[in-house]
Amino acid sequence: MKLASLKDGSRDGKLVVVNDQLTYCTDATHIAPTLQSALDRWVRVRPKLELIAESLSHEAVPATRFHEHDALSPLPRAYQWADGSAYLNHVELVRKARGAEMPESFRTDPLIYQGGSDAFLAPRDPIAVADAAFGADMEGEIAVITGDVRMGATLEQARDAILLVMLVNDVSLRGLIPDELGKGFGFFQSKPSSAFSPVAVTPESLGDAWDGGKLHLPLHVDLNGNAFGRANSGVDMAFDFPQLIAHAAKTRALTAGTIIGSGTVSNRGDSGPGKPVADGGAGYSCIAEQRMIETLQTGTPKTPFLQFGDSVRIEMLDKTGHSVFGAIEQTVEQAVKV
Amino acid sequence: MKLASLKDGSRDGKLVVVNDQLTYCTDATHIAPTLQSALDRWVRVRPKLELIAESLSHEAVPATRFHEHDALSPLPRAYQWADGSAYLNHVELVRKARGAEMPESFRTDPLIYQGGSDAFLAPRDPIAVADAAFGADMEGEIAVITGDVRMGATLEQARDAILLVMLVNDVSLRGLIPDELGKGFGFFQSKPSSAFSPVAVTPESLGDAWDGGKLHLPLHVDLNGNAFGRANSGVDMAFDFPQLIAHAAKTRALTAGTIIGSGTVSNRGDSGPGKPVADGGAGYSCIAEQRMIETLQTGTPKTPFLQFGDSVRIEMLDKTGHSVFGAIEQTVEQAVKV
Repeated sequence: MKLASLKDGSRDGKLVVVNDQLTYCTDATHIAPTLQSALDRWVRVRPKLELIAESLSHEAVPATRFHEHDALSPLPRAYQWADGSAYLNHVELVRKARGAEMPESFRTDPLIYQGGSDAFLAPRDPIAVADAAFGADMEGEIAVITGDVRMGATLEQARDAILLVMLVNDVSLRGLIPDELGKGFGFFQSKPSSAFSPVAVTPESLGDAWDGGKLHLPLHVDLNGNAFGRANSGVDMAFDFPQLIAHAAKTRALTAGTIIGSGTVSNRGDSGPGKPVADGGAGYSCIAEQRMIETLQTGTPKTPFLQFGDSVRIEMLDKTGHSVFGAIEQTVEQAVKV
Repeated sequence: MKLASLKDGSRDGKLVVVNDQLTYCTDATHIAPTLQSALDRWVRVRPKLELIAESLSHEAVPATRFHEHDALSPLPRAYQWADGSAYLNHVELVRKARGAEMPESFRTDPLIYQGGSDAFLAPRDPIAVADAAFGADMEGEIAVITGDVRMGATLEQARDAILLVMLVNDVSLRGLIPDELGKGFGFFQSKPSSAFSPVAVTPESLGDAWDGGKLHLPLHVDLNGNAFGRANSGVDMAFDFPQLIAHAAKTRALTAGTIIGSGTVSNRGDSGPGKPVADGGAGYSCIAEQRMIETLQTGTPKTPFLQFGDSVRIEMLDKTGHSVFGAIEQTVEQAVKV
C-alpha cells in the first residue's frame, strides 16, 4: 500500500491511497483525514486503507491522476524526526573532512541526532537558503515512520513498530556545521527543513527488497541531471532500523508518527571509501563525501556545495525500473529577505 | 487568558479555558477541540476564547472545578521543542562541572538544542528512569509557544509571535550527557520527555511581570518539599525570548505550536555563582548547579541526583502569592521492564 498527503491548503494535506505505479490515487479522508490521524489509530484504520488500495488496483473506486508535484511530504509536520548515521562510511568521510577520527565506539553505539520536524518541505519545494556561503548540501536517506514505541522497547518490538517507509533529503548547511557542533549541543541552524518522497509505502509492498530491517535497492541521487549517487541502501548499513528505533526509545517513549532516518546512504565499495559514479563506483548521496574523496586524491575539493539554481533529484527504482516512492526534486533558491 | 488540555483519553486532550485563580474551567472544544488546533487558527480562534474567558470570570458559562492533576501538558505532543540556554550562570556552572570553560562567543550567540517533542509527560506524571545511575535531574525553565514564524524573522516579528507562556521541567539524565555530547551530535537519550505546567497563559495576562521578552518572577523549585530554587527568571537572562526565537528561525520557518525554552533559570547573585536557598541565596533550578557549588566549596558534590521516590515541584507565584501556571509536581520512579 502506498499513501500520500495531497496539497489542499491545509497544514497536513489530505490523505490519499496511491496505486503501485504512482499514476492514480483515490481519496481516503473518510477513513482518516490526514496521515497523522491514520497513524494515531493505525490498527483500526490500516485494514480499511488496504481495502481501498485493493479496490484502486481493480479500478473499483473513483480515481484521479496522481501528480507527484501535488504531494506534500507524507507527514508535512511530524512530532518526532530522529535521524541516524547508520552508514559509517559517510561518518568516517565527513569526520575526515573535518580532520577528526571516527571513535571506535561508533561501530557498536548508534549515532542519532534530534531533528526538527515542524515544517518539512514538500518533495518539489525549492530549498531556500539565505546565503550561498552556508554551503547547502543534500543528504539522500531512507526513513521509516513508526507506531507507538514504548520506552525500553526490544529490537523485535521496534521492528514491529515500522509502519511505513519513504525517502528523505536531509538538507544540511555544511558551512554552519563546524561552529554549531563546536558549541556542543548538536545541529540546529545547520539542519534546516528536510523534504520527503511524495509517497510513503508499507514494508510489505516492498517485497524482497525489505528484509525487516533494511531496504535493499540503489538510491538514485542526481545533481543537475547527472548521476551522482547509486549507493545501495542495504549495503554497509551498520545499524538497521530496529536498532535505530530501539536506541531512540532507550530513555523515552516514541509516539505514533515518529520518523527515523537512516543517515546518508553510503557504500564503501570493495576497497576504501567508494568511488564516484563517473569512475564506475556507486557514487555518493551528498556532496560532502565527494569533496572528501577529491581532497584525499588531489588535496583540494573540486565539487562546490549546492549553488543557487542547482537541482537535486532523489529517487529509488525497483528491479523493474519503476519508481517506488516518487521523486524528491528540489532546486536551490536564494531566500527572500523579509 | 489561561488555557489547559484536560485528560479525556485522547492523545491531545480537550481544550478548556481556566479562570485566573485556576479553580474553575469551561469547555472550549466547540471553538477548537485541542490547543494545537487553536494555535493553527489563532487569529480567528483567540477572540472567541477570550470571550469565553470573560464569561467564565463572570460565572456566565457552565464551569467545572479545575484540578491540576487532570491536566496534560498544554501541548501533550508538539511539532517543535527548541530549548535555549539563556541563563549563562547555568551554562558556566554546568561546564565547570565537566571541567570545561564557557567560550566567550556564548555571550553573543545563543545556545539552543533541538529537543524531542512527541511524548511530553503530564505535569503530575512520574519521571520513569530505568537506572538510578542515569543521574536524573530537573531543570526548571520558562517556555513560550509561538505562532508561525517565517525564516529570517526579525526580533519584532519574533516578539509578536509569542502567543502563550508556561513552565517546563526539562528532565535531564546527567549520567548519560558526557558520553552522548562526546559523540558530537547533541542530546538524545540524555534528554527524555519533559513536562509542562498545567496551564499556558497569554503574555497579556501576566501584567507587569511580562516585559515582552522576559518574565520577571521568582521560579519556585522544591525538592522533597524543601525550597531548592527561587531564582528570578527576569534576572541574568542573557537572551530574551524574541532573540531565542529569531535564532531558531534563522535558517528555517517555525510552525504554529513551536515551543521555545529559556534554559534552566539561574541567578548569579551579587558575587559569583549564586548561593543555595539555605544560605540565603536564590538557590538553583537544577541539582547539577548545587553540586557544582558544593564541589567549588568542598571539592566534592554532596547532593545526589534524583533518587527513586524523590519529588520535584516547579511553580511560579505572582506578587499576591497566587499560582500563575499551576504546579509541575513529579515523583521519580523506576521504569518498569518491558
